[in-house]
Amino acid sequence: MGRLSLYLRQLERMLRDGIEKVSSRRLGEALGISDAQVRKDLGYFGHFGRAGVGYPVEELVKSVRRILGTDHEWPVALVGIGNLGRALVGYRGFRRQGFQIRAIFDLDPQKVGQSIEGICVEPASDLARRVAELKITLGIIAVPAEAAQAIADTLVSAGVKGILNFAPAPISVPDRISLVAVDLAIQLESLSYQVRIGHTDRETSE
Amino acid sequence: MGRLSLYLRQLERMLRDGIEKVSSRRLGEALGISDAQVRKDLGYFGHFGRAGVGYPVEELVKSVRRILGTDHEWPVALVGIGNLGRALVGYRGFRRQGFQIRAIFDLDPQKVGQSIEGICVEPASDLARRVAELKITLGIIAVPAEAAQAIADTLVSAGVKGILNFAPAPISVPDRISLVAVDLAIQLESLSYQVRIGHTDRETSE
Repeated sequence: MGRLSLYLRQLERMLRDGIEKVSSRRLGEALGISDAQVRKDLGYFGHFGRAGVGYPVEELVKSVRRILGTDHEWPVALVGIGNLGRALVGYRGFRRQGFQIRAIFDLDPQKVGQSIEGICVEPASDLARRVAELKITLGIIAVPAEAAQAIADTLVSAGVKGILNFAPAPISVPDRISLVAVDLAIQLESLSYQVRIGHTDRETSE
Repeated sequence: MGRLSLYLRQLERMLRDGIEKVSSRRLGEALGISDAQVRKDLGYFGHFGRAGVGYPVEELVKSVRRILGTDHEWPVALVGIGNLGRALVGYRGFRRQGFQIRAIFDLDPQKVGQSIEGICVEPASDLARRVAELKITLGIIAVPAEAAQAIADTLVSAGVKGILNFAPAPISVPDRISLVAVDLAIQLESLSYQVRIGHTDRETSE
């Protein structure tokens, strides 16, 4: 799965550079993947390059976006506007991939009413009502560990389909809800592991 | 690799709960991995459970930490103290795994001299000298895209062994330097993908 996002980034870059066709070899080289693996991955999603012609970049971008679900917009609610929450609101990569933060909530009354990049912070007590009203499909949790489960429960009962959890605590949700937990220390561990074993492979976060 | 970090988190949790032995089945269940895969992974690192007895949790924690390089402390320099940088300084998970932010740098003279969690922000112009002085081994880049490559070059020339790049721009480093790029949008894409295909597997960030 992570590899699909990497293909998408690379293909979008090529599209911006005006490249119309790409060979599996060239795409593989740019990503550090063998061209056999590239052909296998893209064949799996119904794409077959032609010898000497390659894959049409624009079409590939569209179909990878469709697979990833980023061919349309996702209205997102962010809960918790501490330092991490603020960083996430300003993160350009979200908007670029169709993730639109439509509402921001916080438990702290002092933060309610503040405007963050044009969005007014609302009280967490309004979370359920507003998520339903705004037809929010994804929730991002960026609250302290101890508040994470209660916020997740509220998001689920309000009807979100998926939750991205940045709180440093495991949360549980019903099976029908998708959940991705982000543990930033894992990225640093992946780095210390590489340094320790002294290898020189390039890894990007998956 | 990401799986090792997941084992570590789970085993540390068990250790805190006073669990001394764990079976491959129980460990696998807690992580959503088959017990055959658990036995394979741990066997690969020289650990073999005994039927009816299981693996010794404390010993496993130590050896996974050794493999990940988190059995000792890593002095870290953070460059860029915007919202994301502040979130990273406060992130408890880093300290817990032995990553110690020893110095903070920023390009903005207005931020220099501020104290963030007891660390005084230093000017980016002192980066090379201070990284060498403090024997910093890992650098975290949390500056805007356009400044990322210059900061990476300085960190490399000052002697760091690895770089974690949060800037939304690809950077290049010599082969001997380890590099992990964190793209937060990939986590959201992983979520939208799950929601789109409607599956219920649990994924954590790798």
